[in-house]
Amino acid sequence: MTPQQPSNVLPALDPRPRCALTCAYDGTDFHGWQKQNPPDGSDVRTVAGVIEQAMIKLLRQPINLVGASRTDAGVHAKGQVAHFNADVNIALDRLPHAVTSRLPDDAQVTAVRSVDADFDAIHSTTSKQYRYRIHSSTKRPLFDRHYVWHCHWTLDAARMADAAARIVGEHDFGGFAAAGHGRTSTVRRVFDCNVQTYEPEVHIVISANGFLYNMVRIIVGTLVEVGRGRRDPDVIDHIFTTTDRQDAGGTVQPSGLCLEWVKYDAPE
Amino acid sequence: MTPQQPSNVLPALDPRPRCALTCAYDGTDFHGWQKQNPPDGSDVRTVAGVIEQAMIKLLRQPINLVGASRTDAGVHAKGQVAHFNADVNIALDRLPHAVTSRLPDDAQVTAVRSVDADFDAIHSTTSKQYRYRIHSSTKRPLFDRHYVWHCHWTLDAARMADAAARIVGEHDFGGFAAAGHGRTSTVRRVFDCNVQTYEPEVHIVISANGFLYNMVRIIVGTLVEVGRGRRDPDVIDHIFTTTDRQDAGGTVQPSGLCLEWVKYDAPE
Repeated sequence: MTPQQPSNVLPALDPRPRCALTCAYDGTDFHGWQKQNPPDGSDVRTVAGVIEQAMIKLLRQPINLVGASRTDAGVHAKGQVAHFNADVNIALDRLPHAVTSRLPDDAQVTAVRSVDADFDAIHSTTSKQYRYRIHSSTKRPLFDRHYVWHCHWTLDAARMADAAARIVGEHDFGGFAAAGHGRTSTVRRVFDCNVQTYEPEVHIVISANGFLYNMVRIIVGTLVEVGRGRRDPDVIDHIFTTTDRQDAGGTVQPSGLCLEWVKYDAPE
Repeated sequence: MTPQQPSNVLPALDPRPRCALTCAYDGTDFHGWQKQNPPDGSDVRTVAGVIEQAMIKLLRQPINLVGASRTDAGVHAKGQVAHFNADVNIALDRLPHAVTSRLPDDAQVTAVRSVDADFDAIHSTTSKQYRYRIHSSTKRPLFDRHYVWHCHWTLDAARMADAAARIVGEHDFGGFAAAGHGRTSTVRRVFDCNVQTYEPEVHIVISANGFLYNMVRIIVGTLVEVGRGRRDPDVIDHIFTTTDRQDAGGTVQPSGLCLEWVKYDAPE
């Protein structure tokens, strides 16, 4: 900044250079991504909390991580992105290993890069992708039990794919959002919504320019209703018209959900 | 039994019909297969213990499970077999589901069948197969962390395969057994010993007519020494000659080990 800077430009609150980190975690034993300060002062184990603490010990300065997606308790991530400001006194490409070696074994930092001061992990996002794994069998899952939702019903993947195709495009997803989402606009653009079968699993993979609270889990709950034969695929169009949460399916459990990646480039 | 039975036939200690069950478990949170009665009276969570307790509640009679393999703490199984005697008052094909629904989510019974009174899960075995998963990477595993051993070294799978081929056949495996194995004979026949690569994992799959205590983990520890280039493949022949435990590699950690199956038919 120079003295000639116009007065209508706010000074940076934190003058340290900005970085973006990519991280992965097994959400099973975390109370979600976001730091929490419960009124009773109890310690709540969150992903942002444990990564911040490791970085504070390593870099010996205050660190505030802002994550692209506030994943819920039990939700996993392979490519969560978060920004932070810091004076990093070691080579950036050594930072992922240095932080990870200070983390518990259910979280890891996979990459760190330098970004512009106006980069914002939440608002600069151009697209994100989630995968939801349904274990569709009368037999319960064992080794993957924390990474799937055990669905006892037989699912018709072709019917689900018909419904999933209707999700793609720009729509008002208000009917697929949990109450209290707190967003002014409920319009989002879904780039892809695919149903993939890996016997005995059915995966739903969905990418969009943004997601409302519980949107993926409610979309999956609705697709499962279609797959069971309790709803027709055109229920999706109906929900876009009414934007009524009551018209959609239930919110499936968090264990099946994984944030696969977050992108910041303009879509091709 | 009839009164005409010759007197040199011992009466059955437990006259109830004998069954064999197949089960699978995630060994992470178990202190191994075998029930333990520590002198201090503390409760030790074992696989045999939790399955027995579920069966006792279901069948309302004493149950004693005898497992084919006493897997160690942290070792997993997809196809452990155990025998027990019981008066089963429900259809045998419904028993797996009935027991499993009473088990914690890290253990399940997958099959139950009726067997002859002289069937013995340990001594009637003709072959067993174990798989050992090595995660060979500078990056640590995340979602599979409880099911692999994280090996930081680069491994030469071709060298390991050369050594593994020498394991096959009937040999004295005394050099590949932990002290205190308590077996009179240390000769075993290995049917197959394969090295499989699934980047970044290397799997060692080994089937034999029997295994000494820690035998797979010591064989893997030795193959890893060969894969790292610290030993030559013919170290295997040397260990068969000396049968000295000191000549073999270390005992790799239990998390990478899984009992895949146990067979009771004559090998084809």
